[in-house]
Formats: sequence, structure tokens, C-alpha cells
Amino acid sequence: MSISNAQATPSIQICRIMRPDDANIVGNVHGGTILKMIEEAGCIIGTRHCNSQTGDRCVAALARVERTDFLYPMFIGEVAHVSAEITYTSKNSVEVQVNVLSENIVTGTKKLTNKATLWYVPLSLQNVDKIIEVPPIEYSSPEQEEAGKKRYEAQKLERTETKERNGEIIMSVSLPEPYTVAFSQSSLIHLVGPSDCTLHGFVHGELHSSQSMSGVTMKLMDEVAGIVAARHCKTNIVTASVDAINFHRKIKKGCVITVSGRMTFTSNKSMEIEVFVDADPLVEAEKGKYRAVTAFFTYISLDKENKPLPVPPLKLEGEEEQKRFEEGKARYLQNKAKRLTDKERQQ
Amino acid sequence: MSISNAQATPSIQICRIMRPDDANIVGNVHGGTILKMIEEAGCIIGTRHCNSQTGDRCVAALARVERTDFLYPMFIGEVAHVSAEITYTSKNSVEVQVNVLSENIVTGTKKLTNKATLWYVPLSLQNVDKIIEVPPIEYSSPEQEEAGKKRYEAQKLERTETKERNGEIIMSVSLPEPYTVAFSQSSLIHLVGPSDCTLHGFVHGELHSSQSMSGVTMKLMDEVAGIVAARHCKTNIVTASVDAINFHRKIKKGCVITVSGRMTFTSNKSMEIEVFVDADPLVEAEKGKYRAVTAFFTYISLDKENKPLPVPPLKLEGEEEQKRFEEGKARYLQNKAKRLTDKERQQ
Amino acid sequence: MSISNAQATPSIQICRIMRPDDANIVGNVHGGTILKMIEEAGCIIGTRHCNSQTGDRCVAALARVERTDFLYPMFIGEVAHVSAEITYTSKNSVEVQVNVLSENIVTGTKKLTNKATLWYVPLSLQNVDKIIEVPPIEYSSPEQEEAGKKRYEAQKLERTETKERNGEIIMSVSLPEPYTVAFSQSSLIHLVGPSDCTLHGFVHGELHSSQSMSGVTMKLMDEVAGIVAARHCKTNIVTASVDAINFHRKIKKGCVITVSGRMTFTSNKSMEIEVFVDADPLVEAEKGKYRAVTAFFTYISLDKENKPLPVPPLKLEGEEEQKRFEEGKARYLQNKAKRLTDKERQQ
Repeated sequence: MSISNAQATPSIQICRIMRPDDANIVGNVHGGTILKMIEEAGCIIGTRHCNSQTGDRCVAALARVERTDFLYPMFIGEVAHVSAEITYTSKNSVEVQVNVLSENIVTGTKKLTNKATLWYVPLSLQNVDKIIEVPPIEYSSPEQEEAGKKRYEAQKLERTETKERNGEIIMSVSLPEPYTVAFSQSSLIHLVGPSDCTLHGFVHGELHSSQSMSGVTMKLMDEVAGIVAARHCKTNIVTASVDAINFHRKIKKGCVITVSGRMTFTSNKSMEIEVFVDADPLVEAEKGKYRAVTAFFTYISLDKENKPLPVPPLKLEGEEEQKRFEEGKARYLQNKAKRLTDKERQQ
Repeated sequence: MSISNAQATPSIQICRIMRPDDANIVGNVHGGTILKMIEEAGCIIGTRHCNSQTGDRCVAALARVERTDFLYPMFIGEVAHVSAEITYTSKNSVEVQVNVLSENIVTGTKKLTNKATLWYVPLSLQNVDKIIEVPPIEYSSPEQEEAGKKRYEAQKLERTETKERNGEIIMSVSLPEPYTVAFSQSSLIHLVGPSDCTLHGFVHGELHSSQSMSGVTMKLMDEVAGIVAARHCKTNIVTASVDAINFHRKIKKGCVITVSGRMTFTSNKSMEIEVFVDADPLVEAEKGKYRAVTAFFTYISLDKENKPLPVPPLKLEGEEEQKRFEEGKARYLQNKAKRLTDKERQQ
Repeated sequence: MSISNAQATPSIQICRIMRPDDANIVGNVHGGTILKMIEEAGCIIGTRHCNSQTGDRCVAALARVERTDFLYPMFIGEVAHVSAEITYTSKNSVEVQVNVLSENIVTGTKKLTNKATLWYVPLSLQNVDKIIEVPPIEYSSPEQEEAGKKRYEAQKLERTETKERNGEIIMSVSLPEPYTVAFSQSSLIHLVGPSDCTLHGFVHGELHSSQSMSGVTMKLMDEVAGIVAARHCKTNIVTASVDAINFHRKIKKGCVITVSGRMTFTSNKSMEIEVFVDADPLVEAEKGKYRAVTAFFTYISLDKENKPLPVPPLKLEGEEEQKRFEEGKARYLQNKAKRLTDKERQQ
């Protein structure tokens, strides 16, 4: 049976029903569940596109996720529709834009809940340290291509600039006071298993786990940030947005990853949590631990009608915490200003 | 944002990457994984359609799956595309036709692997015993409607026939009496899959499943013990303690393990369950089954306030059961004495 | 505590939120979930420690868990904190002590729910039958070391005793002969949990699990059929087709389902397996067990190039089995004829 060529239209849609495990106890779907679906869609479309020409077989590895807002909460029983489209290609990278809709199949209501932009880099299956060339896509207009190029240059600059922020989370001996950073900070440890890896291939009949575990990592980051937020405000909390995330180094099967989160800033109705991911190869001990990812998550607190609640202010201790708070405030004000500009532009 | 009305075109497509857990040890995706995806697609489209008119909210419950052939095997790393379409509606039922394609996103190959026909009945959410009316769909021709009606009549006839045949089945020649050992004893089989294994390593580029599955085994042992306890006392039960467990032999990926539990002893407020784990290497037949682990679990029964409830005494049949009960009693008294000593020592 | 040097202080803490799937229907976390987390912590710390010196890479394999008490029940939504510490090392084994705390992140309440002691043995990754040497830990006092040594000697003695006792166990009074129906027949039990249910809804703010679990049931049916087929022919097997399946009665959350399979027919290159699903409402005892679903699965056996292999013929015992074989043959011939007709019609 012949099926029309998928490469011709570089887009994909994945959808599934949200289950109890995808959500917290009051039924709000975790932001991490959605981030994981977004990454799966991006990985499929990116890998498919980069293999559409002859040459080395490859997989698309996630390099960066742009800042993402969660516009509405999603609930258990709703269907999440994730559609992804390739919007720009440079010589060695692919930009994927993803939209997420929630559909209540009982009432028929549909809402746009997320928009995300992801950057992928194709790694050869023969040699995972080799980056291969990306087949170019066609643009509907020169303006479209030009706008893509600008986005590409901007993210490249930011990616190079991102330094490995070295915040070490120190677990305190004495019980910290409520509303301090130390009180809510949390970390979890996860042993990377086979089912964590997104994409696999058979090479010469051998199963070859070729993909890093970016989707799972983002889900765990959201889980830790959520625990920090819940500890701070003791209410039902949901992910409001995620800052740009850069994936500097691969995380492999057999690693133990430590995901740590600490609150950096609170506004009247939001909390910013900084999340670190450290990977430890465990068996290959000589390689040592390394910082794999860092990001900022913003959470809001909701009442029973899913309306935002005031957030208790963060109690700061010491200069370091004060400095991080100021930086968080700057990010908060910048994003607020950006949202206003976007709104005005749309009107 | 406005989204085009899905009810107009009653079709859906779901897709996801096949993972190691979806497949057997040589990489063939289980038929059951595909059946589950087919049912999810059918349930989404059926529920969506039956709620497309005003009236009672409902969910589509699966009533029948027609004979289904698996045309080609699917593999780990391929993307399964499941598309579903409503092809006939009677007054109270919906026929959904589903196609499954496998796509190798690296080579671009696509194959039709399954075709299935499912029948759903909409049940009211207010009253799950009430079947509601199905909104009619439009047919492209009277012949199409006529063919659908024929399929509907044929499956209805077959369903009524099977129902009668099933009614005759006698569950067990002689059902064991409540509160006996035979009444509550239970066993489960589990096929050891990739995600059951705790730790893995790559040795010379080969995936090497190096860790036994002790954690998973203990979880299954507790599951079986819990079912035995619940069958005995028909209340909410929780694990109170586990005896020392020794792991003498490794359980490997691809084994089938049988976990069996039987009640050995009851005190006023506790039940002791003996659990056996037998491993069967399945493919390496010459090795044969072996007993891998045994242990004793103690359960208590709780009321709604989580307070211990009295446990119905175990009815013993035969000398063997009497002997095991006495041994259980000895363990019970010994642990009780030990707990007392520990308490006194702490004071 | 400093994150950087993990090997220096052989301790670890893992934590995660308890989810609906970790618990029974009234919200008590299964003892098995906690045992599995305990083992994960033990395995990580044991493996890390045993790889902290130069020499063979290894993994820590669980050899024994000491008697464990569950002091308080844990609930969905609480965070389980599992901390593990190496407390003794002999030449070839590691003692790990684990504490489990439950934390209610909303009220801030913390409770010690478990204490466990595990013994690990490091197995070489190059040769899993080789036990490697354990790097010694430092003790704070000679008394501490002495106490550890006593625990080591005590568990060693008990392990040897159990091993001898287990060796005596006779697996089955009379093992059925290969290729008979009795030889390959299998059954599993499954406790229907929240994430098994496909669709849910919120009715008056209450999560209302409204959908039956047809998809999960079919997956389990295929799993049992696959185990029967693999036990019969000891090769790689795949689902070739499934007969029509009728769902007469709903299976609800909290039910235990028993899925049983037996081989009914073999042709040269296929096996037919009959699968039964029985549901037991467990707590609502008055309702009793009922047969929920039956179906026929056809499997084929594949070689390494995914080509069909001959199937060993089924050895029949008694009239019943003979009768079922004839019925299976009739279904086989009918389907074969139908496939031929379909092919001709398409030409």
C-alpha cells in the first residue's frame, strides 16, 4: 500500500487522553506531562525531516526550548492535541513550532493551552558525536525566511551566552522557617532507565538507543518545581510558564540525575523556581557529575474554582538570595512588558 | 482562538513512538499495545460524536471488536499512526473503523499493519446504566448506509449468541468456602520487560541488562499478598510488615515470573500471607522453572478512619494447613515479643 | 552537605510524590511501592560505592532485605522521602540502611513510616557471575564496626539456611508434558487501578471514573495469550489475529480481573489461544465473580529474520481438548477461506 509522502508536509499531530497519572490530585494536568508530549512531537518531526534525504541516518536531539507559557490549565479526561510544524532550518538545526489544544470531548470545548518553539540538532546514528546537515525547507515568502533567520541568530546568541550557573543546593540540618528559600527547596533523584529514552532505532538488527532523554528531564524538572511551589504556598499550584531551556550535554541511560529546585522570586500572584539538573554516570565514575540543564519555572496558586490566589512573599536570607530575587524580579517585569507588547500588537 | 468544528468530520488520528516497554525482547511491538491504542482512538471519536448534540453527557463504552488481523510486525522506534473514523450509527450504537500504520521515521517506510472495526454504546454520565441515543451521521450514498446496516445486524446477532453461550459457563466446579486458604489464594504471571530492570550498562556497545529486578519483584509480591488479604476480609487492607526476603537467584529480562500467595495465619487483627516467586526462562527451555524467592507478608484490615478492624479467622482444611498455621503463630508471637523488648529497651 | 563529592559520604536521598497508581482505591500507598523505592535507593548507593575505586565496573545486586515494618500508612499526594546510607561493608557485600519519611506538603506533617536494611553484592559488568571486592567504609568507632560485623554474620547464617530449605521445594507434583494444553496454560491477576481507566470526568467537582477499561483488558489478554504461545513453542512469537471480542459487562476500578489462556488449536504455522477474563469486585462481595470477556488469539512463531517458523503440534488429552481442537480447526479453515475470497474480490 502506498501512502502519500510525509516529508512533503513537515507537520505532525499527536493526541491522547489525559489520565490520573498525568495530573495532580485535584485533576490539573502537570505542565511536565505537556512538555513531554511537545518534545515527542518535535522529536518525531525533526527526525523525520532530517532523514528525508540520502546520507547518514540520524536522530534529532533537543538543543533548546524557547520560553513557553501555559495559557490555561488542562484536566484529566480531556484530550491533548499537540501539533508540530517545521518553521525554519539552518545548516545544522531545525526549528519546530508546536501548538497544544485541550479538547473536552464531552462538552466539545477546545482551548489553545500552549505554544512552544524547539530547536533540534541531527546527530548521526553511526557516530552520535557527529552533527549532520539539515535538508532545507521551502518558505512561502522571503519575509518568512528572514524572520526565521532572525530567530535562529537570537537563540544561537543566547545559547552561547548561557553559562553554567553554579548554584549548589545545601540541605540544612535544622528545620528552616516557613516562606524562606531553604524551607521549600527540594530535590529528587531519578535513575535513567530504558523506557525513559524517546527514540530508538535498529541498526544492523541491534537495538540502538539513540536519543537523549530531554522529554523525561523536562517532566522531572516540572515535578520538582511543583513540589517547591506547593511547599511554599500549601495550596493547589499549576505551571504558568517555563523559561528558555538549553540542553548543553546529553544524559544517557544508566545515569542518575539529580533535579533540584529552589524558589528565587515571588510576585503577588506568582512564584519563580530555579531548577538544576545534574547528571552522574554512576558506573563510569571517572567522568564525574556534570550540570546538564538549568531553567526557571513560574507557578501560580489556584483556589477551588481555578482562580489565582495571592502568594505568600518569599523571606530572604543573605545577600545571595537577595541578588537572585532581584534578578527574578527583572525577568518578571520583562516578561510582563513583553506580554503587554504582544497584546497591543495583536489588537 | 477559533478552531474548526471537529464534530463535522468524525475522524481522529493519534500517534506515538513505540518504546521498549511496548515490545518483546527482540523488539516486536506487542499486539496488545496496538489494540490499546486502537481502543483509545475509538473511545475518543465515539464519545466526541455522541456528545455532539444537546442532552445527557455521555461516554462511549466498547461493546465489540470485530476480528482483527495483524498484517506486519511493528518495531521499537517506529511511530504508530492510528486513525479512526465513524462509519455507521444505529439508534444506540456507533461503528468505528480504525487503520494503523507503522512509520519508520529514519528510513521513511510506512506500512498498513492493522484494520479494525469497533462498536461503541453511549452510556449516560448521570446514570451509567442508561444508554442514550446516538446522533446520526451522513452517508455519501444510500448503498453505504445499507452496507453499514448489514454489518450492524450481523454483529448484533453474533453478540446475542455469544451472550447466551457465556451465560452457561460454570465458573468453577466447586467454589471454595469463604475464609478457607483455597478461597483467597491467588497468583499472577508477569513477563519481565525492559523497564523492570533497575540498572543497565553498556558493555562494548552492547546493552547489558545487569541488574536483577528485585524492586519490581517485591512490588508484585506485595500486590499478590494484598489481593489474598482483600479476598479474605473484603475490606481495605494495608501492609503491616514483611519478613526477611532472600534473593538467591537472578531473574532476567524475558523471564515469566509467577507470583503466588496463600494465607497461612490469622490473629485477631492481622493476616500472614506466604508468597512464592517462580521464574521460567521461557525461551531457554532447558533451564526450567525455579523458585526464586519466598517471603511472609503481614496485612491488617482498616476501617474508614484508618483504624484496625478485626479479621475473620482462617478456616483450616487438612494437616498441612494446620501445620503452616502453627508456624505462622510462632512467627507472630516471636515478632510480638521482639517489639515489646525493643520498646522496653528504648525506655 | 556538598553536592559535588557523592562518594565521600555514602548516602543518598530520593523523593517523589505518591500518585493514584501507587495506592489502592481509598488512597493508601501500597507497601510494594515503598519497597520498590527502598530498593532503588539501595541499588544506587550500593552501585555508586562499589564503583568508587579503580577496577572492574559493577552493579550492586540485592541479596537480602531484613524484616521491615510499615509504621504508618502513606497517602496519595504525600511526598515519600527515602534516605539510604551504607552502614557496613564486608569483603563482598554492602549493608544499606534506609529510612522512609512521608511528608504532607500541604500541612507540613512528616512521619517516619519505614526502616529497612538491605544487603547488596557487587557483580562485575564484564562477567555477571563474578563477585568483586567492596571498598571498605570508615567507621566512627570500633564498636560500630563490631556491631555491623555481628549483623553481617547473622544474616549470612540465615541466608545459607534458607537456601538449603528452598532447595528442597518440589515445584509441582507432576509437571505436565511439553506440548500439552496443561503445559502452556497460564493466568494472571490484575488489580484495576485508576490509570487503567481510559476516560474520566468531573461531575459536581468529583472525579468520576466513568469508562470501563476495555483497552487495558485487551492488552492483558494479548499478554497472557503471548505467554501461552511462547511457553508452547519457546521462540519469538507475535500476534497474527484476534477473533471478535464482545464486552458484555463493565469492569470497574477496584476489581481484580483474572485473565486465563489455554491453547486450543495448532496448524503448521499458527497457534490458537482461547482467553477468558473473569472479574471479581473484591470488596462488594455479594456481587460475586463473573465472566467478563472471552476471545481467540492467533499467534505465529518467527525466526530472527521475522519469517514464520513451524509450530510443534498440540498434544491432546481427553475428549474436551479434542472437541476444542476441532472447533479451532473449523475457525482456522473458515478464516483461511475468507482471506482467499477477499483476495479474489480485490483482484
